[in-house]
Amino acid sequence: MKIAIDAMGGDHAPKEIVLGALKAVEAYKDIEIVLVGDEEQIKPLLSSNERISIIHTDDVILATDEPVRAVRRKKTASMVVAAQQVADGAADACISAGNTGALMAAGLFIVGRIEGIERPALSPTLPTIGGEGFVLLDVGANVDAKPEHLGQYAVMGSVYAEKVRGVHKPRVGLLNIGTEEKKGNELAKAAFDLLQKQSDIHFIGNVEARDLLDGAADVVVTDGFTGNMVLKTIEGTALSVFKMLKATLSSSFKSKMAAALIMPDLRELKSKMDYAEYGGAALFGLKAPVIKAHGSSNADALFSAVRQTRDMVQNNVAATIKEVLEQNQS
Amino acid sequence: MKIAIDAMGGDHAPKEIVLGALKAVEAYKDIEIVLVGDEEQIKPLLSSNERISIIHTDDVILATDEPVRAVRRKKTASMVVAAQQVADGAADACISAGNTGALMAAGLFIVGRIEGIERPALSPTLPTIGGEGFVLLDVGANVDAKPEHLGQYAVMGSVYAEKVRGVHKPRVGLLNIGTEEKKGNELAKAAFDLLQKQSDIHFIGNVEARDLLDGAADVVVTDGFTGNMVLKTIEGTALSVFKMLKATLSSSFKSKMAAALIMPDLRELKSKMDYAEYGGAALFGLKAPVIKAHGSSNADALFSAVRQTRDMVQNNVAATIKEVLEQNQS
Repeated sequence: MKIAIDAMGGDHAPKEIVLGALKAVEAYKDIEIVLVGDEEQIKPLLSSNERISIIHTDDVILATDEPVRAVRRKKTASMVVAAQQVADGAADACISAGNTGALMAAGLFIVGRIEGIERPALSPTLPTIGGEGFVLLDVGANVDAKPEHLGQYAVMGSVYAEKVRGVHKPRVGLLNIGTEEKKGNELAKAAFDLLQKQSDIHFIGNVEARDLLDGAADVVVTDGFTGNMVLKTIEGTALSVFKMLKATLSSSFKSKMAAALIMPDLRELKSKMDYAEYGGAALFGLKAPVIKAHGSSNADALFSAVRQTRDMVQNNVAATIKEVLEQNQS
Repeated sequence: MKIAIDAMGGDHAPKEIVLGALKAVEAYKDIEIVLVGDEEQIKPLLSSNERISIIHTDDVILATDEPVRAVRRKKTASMVVAAQQVADGAADACISAGNTGALMAAGLFIVGRIEGIERPALSPTLPTIGGEGFVLLDVGANVDAKPEHLGQYAVMGSVYAEKVRGVHKPRVGLLNIGTEEKKGNELAKAAFDLLQKQSDIHFIGNVEARDLLDGAADVVVTDGFTGNMVLKTIEGTALSVFKMLKATLSSSFKSKMAAALIMPDLRELKSKMDYAEYGGAALFGLKAPVIKAHGSSNADALFSAVRQTRDMVQNNVAATIKEVLEQNQS
């Protein structure tokens, strides 16, 4: 199995990306990695060449670039070349921690959609209190979604939860403003009716945003605008609480003493809330796995993204999504 | 000034409602309160009759009642009678901690809209790290909003922030998936164009959900579906983090010792995140203030809601909203 990695994407590229890649080839003997980016910067970081190669390119897509235009014009940008490796069949999947919009465009235009999928979805796995996590989709690939799109998200999320996360008969919930039927905006109401009829998923009805971290469902579907809001609100709220906690813990001598006692526990708690531990956000609905690692990825986060990508390739997620959808149409 | 309170609404009614009302008449000598509900339950709780009266009724709207139908059929329910007091001019404003949907329906059908307001908005004030708070609207009165509705929300939120919260030239932000112009779904893009043209507000552009608790804006406008999601996500995430923190702090002898040292600080931190401290959610766009206190309101939360209602009446929020809107139309 060969995975192409955009070595120049993300806040800590190329160093942390390369270190994460090294860790991954060390851990998984069945993968080969091709790093795409500036050879001069990458080479000094490579402590080994075993199953790691470099495709050199000078060009990069910046965080500030307009996504679609950048992908169309910068044909030799590291992210575009990594996606092209997948399209050409030279790699089985690709990963980037760079510009999210550009990676979605590269996935769509270069790797291409699975036949029958109307819109790909961007999907992170988020933490829950119990540690089991849940798959949320879409978080921004498609901000003006139609009910049928949510129906396909439910299938894609279920296949992923089952094949990669090992959840038996994953519970699919529709994100809504209340748990009762007939709740929500026009989109949510129409999606509810549709999901209820789908025999290919285990639909459990509406779930509320308040209950997500309690593990209300294994797969949560919503439109990309709402999903993006929920994702960023979880992130922002958790960060804010930890920030306030830190201020509280350094406010007096007494609290500083207490802080010293519980610091290791708090660090563990924070890492439990850190969704980078669950890998990157997968772009579902494409012919091959395309994974968006978090922009602030360090080597560990990149390693998690590689592990996740390997699981997706090994378990034929893309092919299974295609099969399930075809069965429904026939 | 007279405020009608639904004594039977909320998880801790009537006890905590009555105690909160008592606390309020004690603190504010310029208000009178009329408690609507079961006299037999309310009377024993009343330690004083000074500026507090009771309107007896047996009927209540339940949390499980279908809102619009309940308001139309249960003409003598405590919440309906409280709203009717406002419509009849017998009270200046009303408060309920009961069924949110029913209170919105009672506000709309009984108290009535300000002329020119297309859709009322439900709006809580949420905490920020710095303590200044922000007004979020709409959180669910209108789940299929149009751009013009968001334009009116911006005016209503600004008047409230300025008149009641004392914010000079409140910064209005549009909740969106990115801070750049041209971001978002169709609604957000159209609302952005509209808000940019409004001279009656201080529009600062898009704000991201991630930055809300950092105080990105004083007034944040969005459609009721998205606003409801963000509100409940903040609530759910903060609760989950505190739950995990509590588990961490009782996991070992060492951490229990530390917990004892910092418990008062943590309690203060939790109350800082508790939006009940900022009063209830106001229904903007009605002829008189209608306030939704949190369903789990205790006496202190109900007291905060009365204080907020008093501020709204004293500062003529409803009349000012009407004036600003009329100025724009002329």
